[in-house]
Amino acid sequence: MQNFVFQNRTKIIFGKDTETSVGEESAVFGKKLLLHYGGGSIKSSGLYDRVITSLQEQGIEIFELSGVQPNPRVSLVREGVSICKENNIGFILAVGGGSVIDSAKAIAAGAKYEGDVWDFFTGKQPVEECLPIGVVLTIPAAGSETSGGTVITNEEGLYKRATGHENMRPQFAILNPVLTYTLPSYQTACGITDMIAHILERYFTNEKNVELTDRLCEATLKTIINNAHTVINEPTNYNARAEIMWAGTIAHNDSLSTGRIGDWASHDIEHEISGIYDIAHGAGLAIVFPAWMKYVYKHDVNRFAQFANRVWDVEIDLNNLEKTALAGIKKIEEFFRSIGMPVTLKEANIADEHFDEMAKKATERWPLGNFVKLHEEDVRQIFNLAR
Amino acid sequence: MQNFVFQNRTKIIFGKDTETSVGEESAVFGKKLLLHYGGGSIKSSGLYDRVITSLQEQGIEIFELSGVQPNPRVSLVREGVSICKENNIGFILAVGGGSVIDSAKAIAAGAKYEGDVWDFFTGKQPVEECLPIGVVLTIPAAGSETSGGTVITNEEGLYKRATGHENMRPQFAILNPVLTYTLPSYQTACGITDMIAHILERYFTNEKNVELTDRLCEATLKTIINNAHTVINEPTNYNARAEIMWAGTIAHNDSLSTGRIGDWASHDIEHEISGIYDIAHGAGLAIVFPAWMKYVYKHDVNRFAQFANRVWDVEIDLNNLEKTALAGIKKIEEFFRSIGMPVTLKEANIADEHFDEMAKKATERWPLGNFVKLHEEDVRQIFNLAR
Repeated sequence: MQNFVFQNRTKIIFGKDTETSVGEESAVFGKKLLLHYGGGSIKSSGLYDRVITSLQEQGIEIFELSGVQPNPRVSLVREGVSICKENNIGFILAVGGGSVIDSAKAIAAGAKYEGDVWDFFTGKQPVEECLPIGVVLTIPAAGSETSGGTVITNEEGLYKRATGHENMRPQFAILNPVLTYTLPSYQTACGITDMIAHILERYFTNEKNVELTDRLCEATLKTIINNAHTVINEPTNYNARAEIMWAGTIAHNDSLSTGRIGDWASHDIEHEISGIYDIAHGAGLAIVFPAWMKYVYKHDVNRFAQFANRVWDVEIDLNNLEKTALAGIKKIEEFFRSIGMPVTLKEANIADEHFDEMAKKATERWPLGNFVKLHEEDVRQIFNLAR
Repeated sequence: MQNFVFQNRTKIIFGKDTETSVGEESAVFGKKLLLHYGGGSIKSSGLYDRVITSLQEQGIEIFELSGVQPNPRVSLVREGVSICKENNIGFILAVGGGSVIDSAKAIAAGAKYEGDVWDFFTGKQPVEECLPIGVVLTIPAAGSETSGGTVITNEEGLYKRATGHENMRPQFAILNPVLTYTLPSYQTACGITDMIAHILERYFTNEKNVELTDRLCEATLKTIINNAHTVINEPTNYNARAEIMWAGTIAHNDSLSTGRIGDWASHDIEHEISGIYDIAHGAGLAIVFPAWMKYVYKHDVNRFAQFANRVWDVEIDLNNLEKTALAGIKKIEEFFRSIGMPVTLKEANIADEHFDEMAKKATERWPLGNFVKLHEEDVRQIFNLAR
């Protein structure tokens, strides 16, 4: 087990009607905030009105910036940074899913920086300070509600890049499973795939003697898998929605990666796809992960066999561990398909015209991954396996 | 699943040599601290010198209070409170196990209160404010290093009582598994029992639809059980010590109880035993828990069968779930015995002379437990089952 430092200070407020506390929670951070959200869905659901009422009851002055898209753009982030600087805003409230939260985090960092916010994403400048942010979560998926990271897309060149800082973790995250009842099943499935991917990135490690975190990963994966079809078939099943929502946060709050080094190549590879094609991140991951697994499983057949056995209840064939390992990969591919995800690029209408370009861009700064280091040719092979 | 609020801000610094950062971590909270510890073991191991050196390098003025005993006494707490008040001390550093940390927490609350610190434990006064505290952990057991609770014994009347507050959670906890190499096997086993008990108290709940936390509990229990004999037989096995140490913290950091209501009757019953007999808390729990299980399992045979199956790999007999449930209880009793714990009062040289008194004291304020509410006569029956 590796040495580690773990601290996650985000206050989780979980359950029915919890969004009514947003004013009280926000008021702790001042009387002026930027309310950041996506499109009209929070208005048609009535959530927008409930949030505004709760904030107004605390006498908070509200500035608004809406229009966050999936794969959030740096142009909107820059707009948010300007609003914060011009109005001396001290707090950002993100109401939405991972894209809105990531956009809010980038604004929070940009508002405390003289230069251009994209500098944080090119590696030119590390994040040092940021405004505090709060979250009302509407899409369980990205885990951004307690993570210290953000992923932003630069429209010029279609670069999708990540940065992070411990202080980027939201101060509070309000998680009401009822708010997820209206999520379309495709988006629900994308979210499920994203949270599974967050665990898999941590699970496939070269670190030995990480039994506790292995088992915690497996426990969280099993719970997500067991509740996935229920939330898709019965979108208003509170208990299943609650399991999925809390699992999505646990999947990415960094407790599951303590003492181990995760991989993260599949996320980087997927970012190239969704950077160009504007496919949902979860759908991209459902395509990339099985291909990545097929490409790397021989590196540690035992770990893949453990995954097959403990997560998918595949019986271990001690005479043929490779067969056990491959059965686990088949199981996850079938699972993604069963919840309506594409598992090949073809199913997402993506042909091979950008394979070379994507493989090059993905690896132009450094090789990807830690479980197996992937270079340009490896990434091209993975695209080929994902055809 | 119940609504819940979860926040655990403690910074965990885990791994080899991490105690060298104690000065730097402490200096954040001022230049004057109370160093609180037990007896000579931290001196003979060299830990005391390393801590002092690290604190002095930061120019921190050190006041000392040693002499914390297992089942820490309110008399020493009062002494600590006086030292803090007289010297205007702003931070308490606990170096030791759960008793030292609990004592430090009580001092931290008492130092910010005009009245007598025991008021917090009788319910006369809730904790409102406390000094920040830090921890260098030497005994993985109580989970006090990230919890918001403390248990103190009042010598007058031998009352053992608990209190807590969110701000009692330590600011940081330094966990170096190497520091636990010198723990005698009996104390190691007591710690293992204590952490298992913390999970069981949460596991046995009437709340339905708590799949994620059920599975996280089971994952942590399995890890502790799998590593228990290794740490006892190979006390310097770093990897096993690390699994146990981190599991002990996870067991009691409140993540495993999110959305559910725990029981805690066994802890309360054990407090009566160790309040009178000065038996190690872990040993007391090894006696009480199997007896409690035998007394209550019929209340939810399915949950006990799940426990038997998922934690102990007992095959589920669908025609006789009670048999499955009882097999799980037998397994945990055998396990406690296998690590050298007493599992009957007789084995701990405790006769029945105080059964009536203990049952009365345990229930004098309110009935115990939540899974099953226990009154005086129930507690007496449990003592009888534990003979």
